[in-house]
Amino acid sequence: MYICTMNFSSRLLENAVNEFSKLPGVGQKTALRLVLHLLNQSAQEVEHFSNALTRLKEEIRFCNVCGNISDAEVCEICSAHKRDKTMVCIVEDTRDVMAIENTNQYNGIYHVLGGLISPMDGVGPSDLNIERLVERVKTGQIDEVILALSATMEGDTTIFYIYKKLKDLPVKITTIARGIAFGGEIEYADEITLARSIATRIPYAG
Amino acid sequence: MYICTMNFSSRLLENAVNEFSKLPGVGQKTALRLVLHLLNQSAQEVEHFSNALTRLKEEIRFCNVCGNISDAEVCEICSAHKRDKTMVCIVEDTRDVMAIENTNQYNGIYHVLGGLISPMDGVGPSDLNIERLVERVKTGQIDEVILALSATMEGDTTIFYIYKKLKDLPVKITTIARGIAFGGEIEYADEITLARSIATRIPYAG
Repeated sequence: MYICTMNFSSRLLENAVNEFSKLPGVGQKTALRLVLHLLNQSAQEVEHFSNALTRLKEEIRFCNVCGNISDAEVCEICSAHKRDKTMVCIVEDTRDVMAIENTNQYNGIYHVLGGLISPMDGVGPSDLNIERLVERVKTGQIDEVILALSATMEGDTTIFYIYKKLKDLPVKITTIARGIAFGGEIEYADEITLARSIATRIPYAG
Repeated sequence: MYICTMNFSSRLLENAVNEFSKLPGVGQKTALRLVLHLLNQSAQEVEHFSNALTRLKEEIRFCNVCGNISDAEVCEICSAHKRDKTMVCIVEDTRDVMAIENTNQYNGIYHVLGGLISPMDGVGPSDLNIERLVERVKTGQIDEVILALSATMEGDTTIFYIYKKLKDLPVKITTIARGIAFGGEIEYADEITLARSIATRIPYAG
């Protein structure tokens, strides 16, 4: 059932519900459910919750090298000896780092932009961690940058902007392959993906 | 994509995500999305969020009369002069009060149990606001109690328990009507609802 206007019996309750419903994908009904759940927890548990948020915002740092969320000045990946420091994968945010790390297939380091260029949302190149990327490449210690950004308009715009910034520097610029997903059926693939996956076909290795 | 184990780049981030994923219906991926959203907000906004929760838990009160969430000793509904104090609607929690208030069809007052009897979840009658209900009825100022509890096993158990407690007191005990919902098609109604709605049929008023 959809409650269009909520008659809260308490302002404190209303406040907490309003704060929760500011979160993405959380409506008033869900917010109320979450708040009532917290109200049923012990005071200590709610304090833990509230403290985790305050500490997160106050104490979190961003790696001086790659810009990823970190507890130290330099993140674990950038400071790891085993990592190939000549290869840098450019991603939107920490979620993408986690997704790529989870594949266990990448041994290079990262550069986290902190977003994508999106004029609609008022995000320009200067809001992103791009200048620092150019500095990193200019040190000459990087052989290849891999653009691993979403295949959306914002992703493509950002890729093009970064490409223009880096193209005159002595670095190889690649993007991750786009095409039919493994397990994906050609019949259900969208036309653009299908067309591009034919255009960028690779020799069959046998 | 499903990430089975998450490699967080920061313990603070991991903590906040773990706290969020304790909420009902919030998995790790959703929790991460919510936390990253908060991280993008200003420090002030995160503080508002965190304060709303702390204040909620520390300052919230429950109405001395009906047990509903309230900012004062007695809630607005119980202290309203226009309300019919001889009719008490028994509900599970504040969400049900809000839903019934939203119909604008009920002018009596409420009694909020704070849950339903559920041996599976370790909730017994003594965990609920039932003793206070018996006291309220014993004052003799209540003519009718309306049991408006969910049509689940827990709801039915609780209804039966309350019925036993009240049946020897001079009060009329009713339950809300159950049957095919307005707009509901008979073809799609479950058998129990259909059978009970036939058994409890009412004269057609014309």
